[in-house]
Amino acid sequence: MIQINEHYQKLAASYLFVDIAKSIRAHQEAHPEQDIIKLGIGDVTRPLPAATLEALHTAIDEMASPDTFRGYGPEQGYDFLREAIAREDFQSRGVAISPDDVFVSDGSKCDTGNIQELFSPDLRVAVPDPVYPVYVDTNVMAGRTGVFENGRYQGLTYLAGTKENGFVPPPPKEEVDLIYLCFPNNPTGATATREQLAAYVEYARKHQALILFDAAYVSFIRDPDLPHSIFEIPGAETCAVEFRSFSKTAGFTGLRCAYTVIPPTVQAWTSNGTPVAVRDLWARRQTTKFNGASYPIQRAAGAIYTPRGTEEVRSLTDYYLENARIIRQGLDQAGFNSYGGKNAPYVWVDAQRPSWELFHLLLEKAGVVTTPGAGFGAAGEGYIRISAFNDREKVERAMERIQAALK
Amino acid sequence: MIQINEHYQKLAASYLFVDIAKSIRAHQEAHPEQDIIKLGIGDVTRPLPAATLEALHTAIDEMASPDTFRGYGPEQGYDFLREAIAREDFQSRGVAISPDDVFVSDGSKCDTGNIQELFSPDLRVAVPDPVYPVYVDTNVMAGRTGVFENGRYQGLTYLAGTKENGFVPPPPKEEVDLIYLCFPNNPTGATATREQLAAYVEYARKHQALILFDAAYVSFIRDPDLPHSIFEIPGAETCAVEFRSFSKTAGFTGLRCAYTVIPPTVQAWTSNGTPVAVRDLWARRQTTKFNGASYPIQRAAGAIYTPRGTEEVRSLTDYYLENARIIRQGLDQAGFNSYGGKNAPYVWVDAQRPSWELFHLLLEKAGVVTTPGAGFGAAGEGYIRISAFNDREKVERAMERIQAALK
Repeated sequence: MIQINEHYQKLAASYLFVDIAKSIRAHQEAHPEQDIIKLGIGDVTRPLPAATLEALHTAIDEMASPDTFRGYGPEQGYDFLREAIAREDFQSRGVAISPDDVFVSDGSKCDTGNIQELFSPDLRVAVPDPVYPVYVDTNVMAGRTGVFENGRYQGLTYLAGTKENGFVPPPPKEEVDLIYLCFPNNPTGATATREQLAAYVEYARKHQALILFDAAYVSFIRDPDLPHSIFEIPGAETCAVEFRSFSKTAGFTGLRCAYTVIPPTVQAWTSNGTPVAVRDLWARRQTTKFNGASYPIQRAAGAIYTPRGTEEVRSLTDYYLENARIIRQGLDQAGFNSYGGKNAPYVWVDAQRPSWELFHLLLEKAGVVTTPGAGFGAAGEGYIRISAFNDREKVERAMERIQAALK
Repeated sequence: MIQINEHYQKLAASYLFVDIAKSIRAHQEAHPEQDIIKLGIGDVTRPLPAATLEALHTAIDEMASPDTFRGYGPEQGYDFLREAIAREDFQSRGVAISPDDVFVSDGSKCDTGNIQELFSPDLRVAVPDPVYPVYVDTNVMAGRTGVFENGRYQGLTYLAGTKENGFVPPPPKEEVDLIYLCFPNNPTGATATREQLAAYVEYARKHQALILFDAAYVSFIRDPDLPHSIFEIPGAETCAVEFRSFSKTAGFTGLRCAYTVIPPTVQAWTSNGTPVAVRDLWARRQTTKFNGASYPIQRAAGAIYTPRGTEEVRSLTDYYLENARIIRQGLDQAGFNSYGGKNAPYVWVDAQRPSWELFHLLLEKAGVVTTPGAGFGAAGEGYIRISAFNDREKVERAMERIQAALK
């Protein structure tokens, strides 16, 4: 008899976006004249940078001729892209990452979801709270948790980001083996300093733990003192894996391209204590279960490392950061304290009431859709997330409406 | 301490393509004047169909404007593609598959590799021999096998395809829970009749087993009596999952697009015997660990279902099938019995000696690269695979050289 992986049945159904959609529908039926502005889901809206469009067209023209046609590419990604990544994203900041450490993929959701396969099913796992649900759900599926109770899975260690710790929780007091971190953070927009990351690296080295560092929003960092990569912290090259994505950097959510960085010195251990290079495990996983990212999309990703592409990406991320500034200012004038939104495309708003209450208030009085913080975990209760990913004019209108509604 | 998934350590290192590359290098050094013709790896060489190129350019132009830009797509794939697939690949042949049963992805390697996650780690698994290594390796990684000994993993049931059974093994005598099948077959090029597939469906229903049916090469079927889909067999809608790919159909190995079909009636069970819909499990897996296939690539896939695209795909697959015919004829004249290559792009050659011996002979005497059958499993010993994926002129030259060399 074909028996299922019963850990799937522990997954708490996530009704967050279903409930949001339902509320929007109800509101629209009651107020058909009102146009609704969506600052909920974190998806980009601006066109692709021109350099990437050009690279895409050129790559597709190559596929039209037998002399330049490309079939299967290297599973780890084309050299032209891995070399550009190593040079521009790391070596240019003094971080010794080589192209061999870079694994190109079709998305960080896949990479952050799949990497836990490399490790034992009975690891102790720590996740941020509020949290990007993929970190949690993939560990539930792998059997690393107990049941879901009172908004949390038994057996997981939750690292709560609170107003008091500036939404950057310190390393756990208890011993864990695998730690997920995300900076700049989704959903809070918080960033971590060099010292805060160093505390995690120290913890990981002390406990032979591994840090999974999700840097999907790194291109929004403007503060020159903030680290861009976990590998800027000495020692991280033995105990961390970093995930980066072109999704928010260059508007690739619909194209699909990302990468994972694993220096050869990053170790895990067998049960009898023999060290194993995590890079080799990931290479084995990817060559077995993945066939490389789409060639034209890799060309598009490569184009963002040209001087013109770099400039266009900067202007694209600046655009969303200006949106974030307008959101913060608008909320301030409406009497709300908000966080993030300076080196990140998300603004985290102290709701001064339960998450869902402010969500409904803003929808009904201002026709603006946000995301209730409670949907990201227990520590998100009392907050809402506002996304800066929208067109300027809509963001401005949303803020005017919120101010008028809450006067 | 971060402990690894120790099942990875059971994986037998595959030196097949490494050893092939090494042999080629050595030969090239000894005979620098000779150009080598590669009929080894099963990768396409012809340009993309014009209809897909046009669709790609159009989709990329859409990404240039805020009004037509597309961000995250539906994880299961765009409606336009799932509807075309259901209609053209299934309903047009009288098979009741709905767009809701279709999950678009970035490759069948990923899908056939990932699907085993949905099931219990202690399943009994049957795989073909010779075999596409992904079926085996992903089950090794998941802990469903013992160690590798004498060319086989303990605990797996191998279904040997032999000359005697026409390379279509019957269902196993013992009881298994999960069965991988691939028709038209890689590497043997064998196809299965309706009756042969019906025997598997009967077996699966009797034992509450699940069939994973890999139909990556379906577009090469020309014999009107052969089934294209496992779902043409009554009863399969309760016990089978089908995998299809645009890789070989339309030359998408570098673009990446495939799909998996799971009717809602396909069941697996919990340990206490409660049935669960496999489609729901896969939907949960994909929405958690995958973010949809690239939008322009889905548009390109959609274009092959237009009348013009269909015609272009037919002419592309005809081209490779004519190569296969030339290969079979050439081998026949050189005194070899060969199989497959009629409704499949692979020719399976009785080597009349150990696989590697004929491999070396053809490389050294004719400068032609093939794949030793032993690399696909114990039952592949004594055969070589010749791929029809190359340009006509090279295929013709390869056959002339083989005939001259073996005279």
